[in-house]
Amino acid sequence: MPLPPDSATASFRAETLARFCAELLGAVGTPAAHARLVADSLVAANLRGVDSHGIQMLAMYLQQIRAGGLNPAASGRVISENGVCLHYDGANGLGQVVADQCTTHSVRLARALGVSVVVARHSNHFGAGAWWGEKLARAGFIGIVMSNACPAVAPWQGTTPILGTNPLCVAVPGCGGEARWMLDMATTTVALGKLTHAGHLNQPTIPRAWGFLDAQGQPTTETAKAQAGAPTPTGGYKGSALAMMVEILCAGLSGGAMTTELPVYRTGGDPLGISHTFIAIDPARFLPAGEFEARVNRLVGMVKVAKPAPGFDEVLVAGEPEWRAEKVRRREGIPVPRSLWEKLGALAAELKIEAPAPDAGR
Amino acid sequence: MPLPPDSATASFRAETLARFCAELLGAVGTPAAHARLVADSLVAANLRGVDSHGIQMLAMYLQQIRAGGLNPAASGRVISENGVCLHYDGANGLGQVVADQCTTHSVRLARALGVSVVVARHSNHFGAGAWWGEKLARAGFIGIVMSNACPAVAPWQGTTPILGTNPLCVAVPGCGGEARWMLDMATTTVALGKLTHAGHLNQPTIPRAWGFLDAQGQPTTETAKAQAGAPTPTGGYKGSALAMMVEILCAGLSGGAMTTELPVYRTGGDPLGISHTFIAIDPARFLPAGEFEARVNRLVGMVKVAKPAPGFDEVLVAGEPEWRAEKVRRREGIPVPRSLWEKLGALAAELKIEAPAPDAGR
Repeated sequence: MPLPPDSATASFRAETLARFCAELLGAVGTPAAHARLVADSLVAANLRGVDSHGIQMLAMYLQQIRAGGLNPAASGRVISENGVCLHYDGANGLGQVVADQCTTHSVRLARALGVSVVVARHSNHFGAGAWWGEKLARAGFIGIVMSNACPAVAPWQGTTPILGTNPLCVAVPGCGGEARWMLDMATTTVALGKLTHAGHLNQPTIPRAWGFLDAQGQPTTETAKAQAGAPTPTGGYKGSALAMMVEILCAGLSGGAMTTELPVYRTGGDPLGISHTFIAIDPARFLPAGEFEARVNRLVGMVKVAKPAPGFDEVLVAGEPEWRAEKVRRREGIPVPRSLWEKLGALAAELKIEAPAPDAGR
Repeated sequence: MPLPPDSATASFRAETLARFCAELLGAVGTPAAHARLVADSLVAANLRGVDSHGIQMLAMYLQQIRAGGLNPAASGRVISENGVCLHYDGANGLGQVVADQCTTHSVRLARALGVSVVVARHSNHFGAGAWWGEKLARAGFIGIVMSNACPAVAPWQGTTPILGTNPLCVAVPGCGGEARWMLDMATTTVALGKLTHAGHLNQPTIPRAWGFLDAQGQPTTETAKAQAGAPTPTGGYKGSALAMMVEILCAGLSGGAMTTELPVYRTGGDPLGISHTFIAIDPARFLPAGEFEARVNRLVGMVKVAKPAPGFDEVLVAGEPEWRAEKVRRREGIPVPRSLWEKLGALAAELKIEAPAPDAGR
């Protein structure tokens, strides 16, 4: 289990990590099906190269559960179902468990009438939106997935962290191949988890383009100062507006906690009270079956013929870097930063779980 | 009608401009109701300070109509209605006429089942999305409005203008007052029409923050070079992904022309073939009547308490600058740049319409 002292990361197969994560969750009272769902969704993010939303979230989940701030056995309940609208109470369950229930309802309602809007409150962090967008896309729908998040981002023209990183994911069905389009973005310049990941890798500096502010509201490239500061909304006032759009469509509609009504992450015993929204649209209500999927594939090709800008070999569309990462990481394993692995190892020791060794040959 | 030679702009009351615009449209064969709708929507944008989407669009519309590239008498037809989904053929009518028909269907369908998705193809420029979002919001719905647009924007990592400026508008019901939230944004760093407006004002330079590239793909602050170049997607890869999201939800779903299948604007006789999408969501399906509206108002207040960043007096939310501009311009009139007024005056002379004089006292 200890890593060789000279390596910053060690490689693990996805299945190894998922089993370990599920065991850790089980050891704090999470039912096996819930533990497996959370573990699979986190490791799927690592596979896609989105380490910000991978197993590094697990330490936070475990801390919340052990502090009594999250009920890992809860799966929530339907508050109301009305036309194609469903309102869900997450009952402070794991975000992934709530999102899994909600997206199952999304699919059922959209099959019946072409579209559905499912809104959940009293939930928790649901991992990467991509996992839920993909579930809707695999069922044949355009999946639009949003979540509010704990206050961390200063609104445009301001310095107080009030908005969440409020992610937006849009996934589309059936566009196979390496150039498959999928949007999954925080409404910040970069996802907050990228900073956490840089911290785990002991990187003293971060790129200026990440747009972090220090505690005084000044731009910074120092990891430590950024950790004491805040991320900025992407594109200034536009990102600020997009974050509020997500807040309105999630917490505004759900009746749940909004912005500073949520606690900051990692405080332990306070329920986070996060809200999510899932919109499913059936393209076959507009076009003959299969035509939408073919059109999106064609659109991707039309964009990729753009002449690359200086410094780039090709034009990539949203999602493409992630599919490529997945191909590599399925083959070569998932690199886990030493400091993160040590943190999870210490938790495992406390919980009397045996942490796996890095997979051989990596 | 001629402006005093020393003024860069002259002021007009909204009603004066709207009547003039409607007369110009009527003179090229536009039915009176269609002309009034277009005129009102354009002048409403000017009132809100969004000159990029105001009467400066009229010259393009007139040119298109006179070249036979747009049928001002058409109002389109329903292709199919299926569950809460409606597919519309704009029949190459004025975008505003098509959008007016579509949003009327949006309201009818969302009243019945809580949500509607209306998708139109074979349309034209529909003005500012805000006008249509507002129509849905006034009817009590969250209105999400998108349109694709003619190719003008290089995708992230590329230099070829392939994507449209693909705007996104989200409007919410009932949040009165000056701080009313409304998102209406191009997915570019700034709207392309801002550059056109700077040109009309003979401004030799534009801010670097507008993010325009010259014809070689290098950043530029020279108005003329930017006019020969292209705008950039907001926030780099995120704006590029948002533009593709809009393209997919509009043209992907509508079966209409996608990106470079559309002609560039102002070419005259070619139908533009633009697609729009309108999503309406009834908040009263989730919360008791009026609660959503009160919550959004409260959210706006929670964001506005942020400490202003250096250089700002207060934090503004999306929509707020536009409501303030409207208050001022209703009182003081709409400033019209000299070169734009001369252009419209020349068109009026050709069409034997008398252009109004600037309103007295301004």
